[in-house]
Amino acid sequence: MSDEDFMRQAIQLATTQMLADQGGPFGALIVHESRVISEGWNQVTSSNDPTAHAEIVAIRGAAEALGSYALADCDLFTSCEPCPMCLGAAYWAGVRRIVFAASRQDAAKGGFSDEFLYQELPKAIEDRQIPTIQLLGTEGWAPFAAWLAKEDRIQY
Amino acid sequence: MSDEDFMRQAIQLATTQMLADQGGPFGALIVHESRVISEGWNQVTSSNDPTAHAEIVAIRGAAEALGSYALADCDLFTSCEPCPMCLGAAYWAGVRRIVFAASRQDAAKGGFSDEFLYQELPKAIEDRQIPTIQLLGTEGWAPFAAWLAKEDRIQY
Repeated sequence: MSDEDFMRQAIQLATTQMLADQGGPFGALIVHESRVISEGWNQVTSSNDPTAHAEIVAIRGAAEALGSYALADCDLFTSCEPCPMCLGAAYWAGVRRIVFAASRQDAAKGGFSDEFLYQELPKAIEDRQIPTIQLLGTEGWAPFAAWLAKEDRIQY
Repeated sequence: MSDEDFMRQAIQLATTQMLADQGGPFGALIVHESRVISEGWNQVTSSNDPTAHAEIVAIRGAAEALGSYALADCDLFTSCEPCPMCLGAAYWAGVRRIVFAASRQDAAKGGFSDEFLYQELPKAIEDRQIPTIQLLGTEGWAPFAAWLAKEDRIQY
């Protein structure tokens, strides 16, 4: 299957699952060695999980399928440009490539906050819409100190 | 309990669960009406889930506890400044307030990529480390067109 085939499958998934009242109109696939190893679609409203975006669901499924938190040699196909949450997940998973169809501006036209989040995240903490503060910063180092002292730690 | 009490609980969770080989040194709580309704800790390496950061786990748990994808009147306490994935999740969940202890620079000193991701996400797509391309952008609008035509859609 070609990149276009995988993408059409992701787009179809977005429409089909949304029409089945699963959530917003988003679909995603993880492809490993030219084979789809997981599918994801938005399930925020049906599963009451604000993190259940198509890409997150697909990434979690692929990690389970491969038995690894590192999705080496995996490509993420998604019907819409990943939001910052999902882009962050793709980086943590270490996918090889990200291929998307609709843009964050299309998502905005559909009523979703992706573009807003891209504006919001790089801002200084004190300028963000959700009030955010640092507290006990010095005590917050303790878990890292214990981590660095742990000789058998699994760095990722 | 005071903000400091909640934060010390999150920090303690980070150390305890990391020492129990759950994953990286991160802990988080969701507080609703002055009560802890969920706890989360990093489980990336123990559960083979690259999205299982402390905040994501805590947010999913709180949404389950409240039976809602919208965490209104909920505060997120986390032992370390949320990475872009987790900050995005906090915004999608609509938490009221984010309180963190260690900074993204502390996380970098501990060997984690949070600061790198904050640098990476605002970049133009073509300048990012993971190759990212748009494909079939016009066809990608179809799920949104179907969404906007769906009269009983649940916008979030």
